[in-house]
Amino acid sequence: MDYTYAPGRNHLFVPGPVNIPDQVLRAMNRNNEDYRSPAIPALTKTLLEDVKKIFKTTSGTPFLIPTTGTGAWESALTNTLSPGDRIVSFIIGQFSLLWVDQQKRLGFNVDVVESEWGRGADLDVLASKLAADTAHTIKAVCIVHNETATGVTNNLATVRKILDEYQHPALFLVDGVSSICALDFRMDEWGVDVALTGSQKALSLPTGMGIVCASPKAIEASQSAKSLRVFFDWKDYLKFYKMGTYWPYTPSIQLLYGLKAALDLIFEEGLDNVIARHTRLGTATRLAVEAWGLKNCTQKEEWFSDTVTAVVVPPYIDSSEIVRRGWKRYNLSLGLGLNKVAGKVFRIGHLGHLNDLQLLGCLAGVEMVLKDVGYPVKLGSGVAAACAYLQNNIPMIPSRI
Amino acid sequence: MDYTYAPGRNHLFVPGPVNIPDQVLRAMNRNNEDYRSPAIPALTKTLLEDVKKIFKTTSGTPFLIPTTGTGAWESALTNTLSPGDRIVSFIIGQFSLLWVDQQKRLGFNVDVVESEWGRGADLDVLASKLAADTAHTIKAVCIVHNETATGVTNNLATVRKILDEYQHPALFLVDGVSSICALDFRMDEWGVDVALTGSQKALSLPTGMGIVCASPKAIEASQSAKSLRVFFDWKDYLKFYKMGTYWPYTPSIQLLYGLKAALDLIFEEGLDNVIARHTRLGTATRLAVEAWGLKNCTQKEEWFSDTVTAVVVPPYIDSSEIVRRGWKRYNLSLGLGLNKVAGKVFRIGHLGHLNDLQLLGCLAGVEMVLKDVGYPVKLGSGVAAACAYLQNNIPMIPSRI
Amino acid sequence: MDYTYAPGRNHLFVPGPVNIPDQVLRAMNRNNEDYRSPAIPALTKTLLEDVKKIFKTTSGTPFLIPTTGTGAWESALTNTLSPGDRIVSFIIGQFSLLWVDQQKRLGFNVDVVESEWGRGADLDVLASKLAADTAHTIKAVCIVHNETATGVTNNLATVRKILDEYQHPALFLVDGVSSICALDFRMDEWGVDVALTGSQKALSLPTGMGIVCASPKAIEASQSAKSLRVFFDWKDYLKFYKMGTYWPYTPSIQLLYGLKAALDLIFEEGLDNVIARHTRLGTATRLAVEAWGLKNCTQKEEWFSDTVTAVVVPPYIDSSEIVRRGWKRYNLSLGLGLNKVAGKVFRIGHLGHLNDLQLLGCLAGVEMVLKDVGYPVKLGSGVAAACAYLQNNIPMIPSRI
Amino acid sequence: MDYTYAPGRNHLFVPGPVNIPDQVLRAMNRNNEDYRSPAIPALTKTLLEDVKKIFKTTSGTPFLIPTTGTGAWESALTNTLSPGDRIVSFIIGQFSLLWVDQQKRLGFNVDVVESEWGRGADLDVLASKLAADTAHTIKAVCIVHNETATGVTNNLATVRKILDEYQHPALFLVDGVSSICALDFRMDEWGVDVALTGSQKALSLPTGMGIVCASPKAIEASQSAKSLRVFFDWKDYLKFYKMGTYWPYTPSIQLLYGLKAALDLIFEEGLDNVIARHTRLGTATRLAVEAWGLKNCTQKEEWFSDTVTAVVVPPYIDSSEIVRRGWKRYNLSLGLGLNKVAGKVFRIGHLGHLNDLQLLGCLAGVEMVLKDVGYPVKLGSGVAAACAYLQNNIPMIPSRI
Repeated sequence: MDYTYAPGRNHLFVPGPVNIPDQVLRAMNRNNEDYRSPAIPALTKTLLEDVKKIFKTTSGTPFLIPTTGTGAWESALTNTLSPGDRIVSFIIGQFSLLWVDQQKRLGFNVDVVESEWGRGADLDVLASKLAADTAHTIKAVCIVHNETATGVTNNLATVRKILDEYQHPALFLVDGVSSICALDFRMDEWGVDVALTGSQKALSLPTGMGIVCASPKAIEASQSAKSLRVFFDWKDYLKFYKMGTYWPYTPSIQLLYGLKAALDLIFEEGLDNVIARHTRLGTATRLAVEAWGLKNCTQKEEWFSDTVTAVVVPPYIDSSEIVRRGWKRYNLSLGLGLNKVAGKVFRIGHLGHLNDLQLLGCLAGVEMVLKDVGYPVKLGSGVAAACAYLQNNIPMIPSRI
Repeated sequence: MDYTYAPGRNHLFVPGPVNIPDQVLRAMNRNNEDYRSPAIPALTKTLLEDVKKIFKTTSGTPFLIPTTGTGAWESALTNTLSPGDRIVSFIIGQFSLLWVDQQKRLGFNVDVVESEWGRGADLDVLASKLAADTAHTIKAVCIVHNETATGVTNNLATVRKILDEYQHPALFLVDGVSSICALDFRMDEWGVDVALTGSQKALSLPTGMGIVCASPKAIEASQSAKSLRVFFDWKDYLKFYKMGTYWPYTPSIQLLYGLKAALDLIFEEGLDNVIARHTRLGTATRLAVEAWGLKNCTQKEEWFSDTVTAVVVPPYIDSSEIVRRGWKRYNLSLGLGLNKVAGKVFRIGHLGHLNDLQLLGCLAGVEMVLKDVGYPVKLGSGVAAACAYLQNNIPMIPSRI
Repeated sequence: MDYTYAPGRNHLFVPGPVNIPDQVLRAMNRNNEDYRSPAIPALTKTLLEDVKKIFKTTSGTPFLIPTTGTGAWESALTNTLSPGDRIVSFIIGQFSLLWVDQQKRLGFNVDVVESEWGRGADLDVLASKLAADTAHTIKAVCIVHNETATGVTNNLATVRKILDEYQHPALFLVDGVSSICALDFRMDEWGVDVALTGSQKALSLPTGMGIVCASPKAIEASQSAKSLRVFFDWKDYLKFYKMGTYWPYTPSIQLLYGLKAALDLIFEEGLDNVIARHTRLGTATRLAVEAWGLKNCTQKEEWFSDTVTAVVVPPYIDSSEIVRRGWKRYNLSLGLGLNKVAGKVFRIGHLGHLNDLQLLGCLAGVEMVLKDVGYPVKLGSGVAAACAYLQNNIPMIPSRI
Repeated sequence: MDYTYAPGRNHLFVPGPVNIPDQVLRAMNRNNEDYRSPAIPALTKTLLEDVKKIFKTTSGTPFLIPTTGTGAWESALTNTLSPGDRIVSFIIGQFSLLWVDQQKRLGFNVDVVESEWGRGADLDVLASKLAADTAHTIKAVCIVHNETATGVTNNLATVRKILDEYQHPALFLVDGVSSICALDFRMDEWGVDVALTGSQKALSLPTGMGIVCASPKAIEASQSAKSLRVFFDWKDYLKFYKMGTYWPYTPSIQLLYGLKAALDLIFEEGLDNVIARHTRLGTATRLAVEAWGLKNCTQKEEWFSDTVTAVVVPPYIDSSEIVRRGWKRYNLSLGLGLNKVAGKVFRIGHLGHLNDLQLLGCLAGVEMVLKDVGYPVKLGSGVAAACAYLQNNIPMIPSRI
């Protein structure tokens, strides 16, 4: 059943699904249970309270949906919008592109703002669109917080600032799939109306839970939204929340216990420490890339992503060969370049349950792979650059002092 | 994290989620992986071939969707039908009722045929509707194979016979959630167009995978169906099947390996032996119910379900109290009566990874619960009746002879 | 790797190794760790304190030895005695016989007191030996608390009474392998000098840890005992206890965490409740045996064991066939008759992580097996007898009220 | 229960216990079983055949004893020797010292040959002792293949050569704890009479199984050896081997299944490939040490160990501080210096289930630790040196080509 055995650990550096903590694996290693017994509602109640913290919201309503990020997107859109609604959406890479594709196929009138891949969403265009929209025909602004394909982080605070500037009532819908629990995200402060993530990203769980959080304004919108929906309908959830049984259909018992364990670890580390760790790992990665003489796909520092780095390879190298080679020789899993940047970039995911020495092992591996495929890297250079930074910045482990 | 500890095993006799084999728990006890490495497509390819066997189809196309049974329903409907399409659907209990609710909310024109709860779908009415529909305005016949709320199994062969009799081209959509892998189900022979189940039922996995299988005719219908859909869209799956990467979005690595293990066990036992085991456990349960002097909610033998038995309690007893008592005193998980039969029936699920002595422990527990709540059961009577049958019918374990 | 697959759970009713709670399996599902880091000593310190509670001692010194019950025996003997020392020891079944065999092979002068198998240790003979031994040549009295082969529990309080009566200074060494954590055991109150058990018995862990507890008097004896020993030498443990690193050689990390989880569950249930549960399960089993018209191997009620029941079969039946049949047809694991009672008894172990419905499933299975092998049992009779008692005696589950 | 949480994986580089493969963890994640059912003997039989391969013996008899390496030592000695027997034994570090301590305490007349720590066993002295011993008073030569405290590998082929040269009949007893399954070891070719290892070393299992293999000559010796023993007595094992039930007392079910999985992985990789991997990892480590400007505790290349490297630190640094720091800041577990080399060396274990990128992460971590404690290492230097070698020497993963 394990087709591709190799000695030692797999070095998993795709930007999701990411490494699962042993504590979470243990929590999930269990039989099914009756989800209508008092135990599961009690657990769910705790989870719904706890999960709000990772969104930094007190007023939001979370939904733990047995689906993926793609389903979470659909949940966000269909519950708040009606077919034909005008929305502004940005394409800056493969995942924002896929979201826009979904938005169109679900029947919305999508006003697409495209950027060159490697750049952030063009918020000036957003500003002019909002400024022009005095009739408030724009019903929602949809944006990915972090584009996983290019390693670009958009500035959500600025989006809110623009919305406020024009006193525009559009809903503010955020794909936080590769950001929430890893990057600084503030649902209430930034007035985000729907934010969402997937369990297999910074939460470090298996795939299978779409975590969606809705502001009161989004909940209100859901009462009149006309998009047809059942599986993703918040109404059914809210009905069962009220009854105290919580689940309109069967949840994954294992993922619920896993989520509890994952949140416990995040809170034990401290959410802000988790975010600081991602900043550190992202910085170290970028220093290595620089030392290798390679370019970050992300064009400006303001957009640098602390969860994934897309590295541009020289034109004479096929970046897919780097990914293949990593897997076939070093048991190293890197991310492919996708669509427009296929063959041109490879990606190092550095999110979730991960520490410095794991990353350094990956960076050493990338160096050998680069050499394998003909890039004249100085072996050790990236690791040296990362270590010089890390050795000054890694904190002591609080539980061990 | 375990709020409700009790010594010894939980006796899980709800009709899903059901007991997971240790072999499957072991297979799922693993870290995430890159789903774009060659390993996961290779595994998926095997799974898609293997999973057809549980549907008894060679021409069908299976989809392993990260969702629940409710999502699988939605996938079946939205891929084959367009809003406004007329469909015939049956309400015979809570789950068929919920499916009809979904059908309506998704915009179909649902021609509902209701039966008293405890009876099967009224196929005479189906026959007359099809007979009258010479214009072929009926686009689909939707039916649950086994109604989990009442323990009623519908006769699908008869449905096909009726469709054939009137040479009606309607699609034949089947909810096999509490039947497939436990009851006799023959997709190709019965000309079923879409069949579906959920991982947490007879497959004995955690919740989180909706398994949908589409006939060539259903696949063809999906090309013109106008229901808006993205997450559930087969088109995206088919595109990735063709590319050999299989996944339009991230699957649960753990459920894939778990499904492999679950199918391996089913094939090791032999699917027909699995079905025979369910017949045996269902029969034993019904003999116990009879010995207790209680009535099966299912009114006729032809509809008896071998996966779940709904037991009618005397009017002076609240069946919910039986379920509560089982859990609070005996670590026994039984199914509640739902909706119209709430308080009137309790349910014994006897599907999935289960054997005779487990069932007998449950039956002994039910007897004590019945006595607890004031029903004058003769302790041991149900177990005796079940044993008398089982001792003559349990086969030797082939691997141990 | 699983040679003998059968659907559903194995019904494990041998008197050890016993069922492991899922919580313990989860706790043990972990990688190795450096046992010289601060984490393992901290855990060990807690364990050594906690484990004293199951011996009901405050003055004893526990040792968690990577071995089995046989090794724990050897540890008890070689640390407290010198070759040639006279000891009184009882043979009442296979395990006490094996302990005596060990005592002889380790060079002690064993004064053996034999009883018919099915009877307890003859304490009158002990009394006369102690009375006669005014020179105090007897260095130790060795006794099994519960003989696992025959289901006989010896009265340890009486042993202490006799020792006190003659003011005899002999050490009091107790094999508590199938008693501690299941039967009433009071190390301090009964003045036991060494008591021991194995992890796979009532503690419900995997095999691999011998748990030995020594009184101050035993510790003192160990300073002059001349039996050669290294692996089992308490001296090495005590040296490392003093240093605070605890381990003279590598422990099983997994068993340490498992022991913590197992003790936590025992304390959550309450040790006295655990013992009461065993009394209840033992009583129910004996009522079933009586209902079947079969005899308990144990000849008098005062010796009845609440952890294992040896059932005598009629002479025309080979009890081994019962065990084989249970395994081959019902996935039921019963204990064989050993040595003198081979073929004559089969054993039902009812100790450890076990509850009433599990036992009832087993009893129903035994009934069918009995019928299979030609014993004219009335099916349901044992279950009925057990249920009549249990339904009056099972407490509500405290965490669920 | 997890006292010392830190994000990401623990980097386990002590020379045992080592990292357990996920496949092995999965295989061990299981309930207890009746070890007297046919399943466990069948499994055991396979294991006893398979385990011979890691000793490279066809004539040896293996014993899988529920104990640790210390117990395995005791088993080797007490089964083949009688108190007072003269044996030659070498002290070259802490573990050989402890074995000699055991030998003395077990009553043997130990002729100790000491070397400076960091040097191998002085085989010239062995030669002269054997030469002088024309009366064959020397009953055994005891030697550790690999001294885990100093990272010194003794040349066993030379030992055999010397024994043969003097046609000396002494038994040849080998501690292979940190060698077998990692270093080249040839029981039959080198005429080793007893070889032993522990499960938690290169086999990459949890602690708890001492694996001992005896040559026909050793088995013969065991029939007359007068050392008192029961738990460790091969006689009991052999008796049960003959009966086909295999176990004189209860084994760990989990470790048996774990051993099967561990051996399967070793055979899948190929034992010689496993050994080659250890050579590669050892070489890479030594290159890093050299690049850091530090000295290997092992004084000559002929003794270099491919399973553990003891690194000498400058006198102004306390090596224990390095270990502490690694654990407290980097989640890196290194080995302490022991006894004579306490404070002077730290150890990098590079054995068992481990690959190149894991090692490189460790080496990067060691560099940062060295800098932390005031050693002027050039960050990246060791990794660069290791990578330069590894990038030329790592083979493609056969299952992935």
